[in-house]
Amino acid sequence: MAKYLTSRAENYSQWYNDLVVKAGLAEGAAVRGCMVIKPYGYAIWEKMQQQLDKMFKETGHVNAYFPLLIPKSFFSKEADHVEGFAKECAVVTHYRLKNDPDGNGVVVDPEAKLEEEYIIRPTSETIIWNTYKGWIQSYRDLPILCNQWANVVRWEMRTRMFLRTAEFLWQEGHTAHATKEEALEEANKMVRVYAEFAEKWMAMPVIMGHKSETERFAGALDTLTIEAMMQDGKALQAGTSHFLGQNFAKAFDVMFATKEGKQEYVWATSWGVSTRLMGALIMAHSDDNGLVLPPKLAPLQVVIVPIYKGVEGLERIRETVKPLMETLRRMGITVKFDDRDTQKPGWKFADYELKGVPVRLAMGERDLANGTVEVARRDTLTKETLPLAGVEQHIEKLLEEMQENIYKLALERRNKLITKVDSYDEFKELIETKGGFFLCHWDGTPETEARIKEETKATIRCIPFDSPEEEGKCMVTGRPSHRRVLIARAY
Amino acid sequence: MAKYLTSRAENYSQWYNDLVVKAGLAEGAAVRGCMVIKPYGYAIWEKMQQQLDKMFKETGHVNAYFPLLIPKSFFSKEADHVEGFAKECAVVTHYRLKNDPDGNGVVVDPEAKLEEEYIIRPTSETIIWNTYKGWIQSYRDLPILCNQWANVVRWEMRTRMFLRTAEFLWQEGHTAHATKEEALEEANKMVRVYAEFAEKWMAMPVIMGHKSETERFAGALDTLTIEAMMQDGKALQAGTSHFLGQNFAKAFDVMFATKEGKQEYVWATSWGVSTRLMGALIMAHSDDNGLVLPPKLAPLQVVIVPIYKGVEGLERIRETVKPLMETLRRMGITVKFDDRDTQKPGWKFADYELKGVPVRLAMGERDLANGTVEVARRDTLTKETLPLAGVEQHIEKLLEEMQENIYKLALERRNKLITKVDSYDEFKELIETKGGFFLCHWDGTPETEARIKEETKATIRCIPFDSPEEEGKCMVTGRPSHRRVLIARAY
Repeated sequence: MAKYLTSRAENYSQWYNDLVVKAGLAEGAAVRGCMVIKPYGYAIWEKMQQQLDKMFKETGHVNAYFPLLIPKSFFSKEADHVEGFAKECAVVTHYRLKNDPDGNGVVVDPEAKLEEEYIIRPTSETIIWNTYKGWIQSYRDLPILCNQWANVVRWEMRTRMFLRTAEFLWQEGHTAHATKEEALEEANKMVRVYAEFAEKWMAMPVIMGHKSETERFAGALDTLTIEAMMQDGKALQAGTSHFLGQNFAKAFDVMFATKEGKQEYVWATSWGVSTRLMGALIMAHSDDNGLVLPPKLAPLQVVIVPIYKGVEGLERIRETVKPLMETLRRMGITVKFDDRDTQKPGWKFADYELKGVPVRLAMGERDLANGTVEVARRDTLTKETLPLAGVEQHIEKLLEEMQENIYKLALERRNKLITKVDSYDEFKELIETKGGFFLCHWDGTPETEARIKEETKATIRCIPFDSPEEEGKCMVTGRPSHRRVLIARAY
Repeated sequence: MAKYLTSRAENYSQWYNDLVVKAGLAEGAAVRGCMVIKPYGYAIWEKMQQQLDKMFKETGHVNAYFPLLIPKSFFSKEADHVEGFAKECAVVTHYRLKNDPDGNGVVVDPEAKLEEEYIIRPTSETIIWNTYKGWIQSYRDLPILCNQWANVVRWEMRTRMFLRTAEFLWQEGHTAHATKEEALEEANKMVRVYAEFAEKWMAMPVIMGHKSETERFAGALDTLTIEAMMQDGKALQAGTSHFLGQNFAKAFDVMFATKEGKQEYVWATSWGVSTRLMGALIMAHSDDNGLVLPPKLAPLQVVIVPIYKGVEGLERIRETVKPLMETLRRMGITVKFDDRDTQKPGWKFADYELKGVPVRLAMGERDLANGTVEVARRDTLTKETLPLAGVEQHIEKLLEEMQENIYKLALERRNKLITKVDSYDEFKELIETKGGFFLCHWDGTPETEARIKEETKATIRCIPFDSPEEEGKCMVTGRPSHRRVLIARAY
């Protein structure tokens, strides 16, 4: 192995950290709780962005950009929102430094104190609804379907790369509608866009559902979520879509004239996914050899490693694979010929495994003589020797097959770890011994929810869309329940 | 006219502000010196980003992301840099708000004071070179060719939308090299990438050159620039590329082992363009009717306005143009059919002129009968009636022709306003009466440069790459000079 990775069985959490750093995805920064997203990690994020952006545009959304800094007073305008967001945040109080009179570098200039402090956006509802006030007069101005790609800062106490960092990258959609029905439909549409992206692109099955009241976004009337299962059986909330009712319209006094000439408050949604998806992607599929990337999100899909003696040998291989590379590129497949002479083929094999490159081709002297090439696939770690002629069709099919296979494996793994439980004792035992997702009856009260969390560290992940009506008794209190909810420990 | 625009002759500055707001590009934000980039403005910026990003990748660069916040002490490490950047900046001093004990919303929690303050990045050399220290051990790790798309904050006192705002969007390339020659070549390559982008995509001629010592980036040994002329004859610095020598490597102690095993400091460049390019694009080409966009950067290239009576009439036109729209889309041309019944055709015409949509097609009853369509081009405001059959080829050619024509007009306008001057008196007169760019002899001293600036508000824009050797005398002091430099008033 090029770089030793802790195994998942040994220490799952250490495996994750090792993998993030050793595969060159990200590293801790000199700033508390922040990370540097390294080029390989950023290339995966870019592929995610491109696809999501395309899906947003196909559903009628446009991009815009709103200020990073938000006046402190804006946060006080929506009562729930201030509780949820204004507390742990980065506060800008001054606008100038000056030379230290004692000669020790620079110090904050006390003369340059802001009259009103600014908060670095933890989310942008307030500044955006303050702006929408100027954009909306009549029903003709609606709907507004804006999305923003941006960085946000939340002063988290315990951070982990990609999963929870003080600064992270995300997109936040903010829409304005004339009717409640239209806003509800939008919130619903966008959680389904997220689910489609997770399943079709990230090859990661998700469960869609409503958050419980306690777990809702601060200021929302309903929060829809997609919940994915990581390989250790824990849940990861991968994206949320909020129906905000008229809360922000009321807080920022945004009204519109209806067709009938009445003045009404505007209805709102917001929805977002973040670089947290990188953490989900890594933990959903990867193995003890490194990353496993679904081909659709792999920055490099095919790598060719020559096994040669001398410059002449290398050139013969280069010439032989040149037409193949051209064909693959025409087919829209990314391919690289790794001709570095600073590393041995074995080292390269391990390194590309670590980085999760889906298909690795190797070509040596014998292949040259026989007109063959060795094709290795990253997901199953299997390899076969095939005729070079026509291998491009094989590779194209293989990439599709791998995309499906990675999804199938994740789905099987997850479904094995979904358990219906009716007794709280059984639940408490199984959450320790088996883990995974649990479908249980719950009486719908925040008190019971809090008790479960306190006693088991598990939370209600969602009330799944597809949870059928079923009469039952809350596993904790025995009170009546009409459907099962999804409970798990979570990231 | 849909929306009244101040004319350029009447008040150029007001014309610009009007245009930015009325064409829906941007508006002032509730945060001092910041703007909201509205969807139409952001769509143009996205087109710029896409092309620049492609050009960066084609020249071997990769994207990455570094933290928004920079520890204050980092700024003290490079002496010139601290003078240039650490002074007017946003300072984060606290990480929490709390409820005001007096019940007035939220206040900064004095308990949550940071031990060391953070600065919101005004530029990222310091945090990036602090990171590169961990990435570079040997010549094998070089070069590093990273770019970052990000927001930055500089606490500017006088702001104007796109041209100078407290927060702006930009890209910043930061490269690390084993040799001085390679770093110089990189800085040179990137200013040429910017020039190519400005000329081929923005249709905006630029003059490439070296900045004078006074005008250099804080911490650079050489700053290369592209300077464009706006329609009022003022210069606009549209992009810069810096040769940083070993300054940041020394400040952050970044050394590498050479092939021969010696330890040497790494050589650096940085280069950037920002949303300021939006201001340049607007001011370079637009007219009293609104935006004029080069077709390559227009989010919408062709709009079709139906002129009809009744629903049936509209449907007949819709059916007639449907195959044309499909053909245009297949050709990679963006097209929209504006079937809104809330606005009259005349209003739509004026609105698309205001927004700078390159080609406007209009189709009425008579066109239907004759199999024709009216084709209007935005740059010349001319129109002609053409047979509908085959009009797609005409449109494709027209878009190319417009791209060239817009460039040609800007070039002619600029060249008419480049004046060679040898006497300071003449210079002082002409800068008031004629304006534009001046090619003058200068003695190379900061004192003379400062005097010119003080007495005429003009600055040395650059020492052009193509300025031939020519013996002369400084127009101010009469001291010897070996080539002419470019002087102008600037944005």
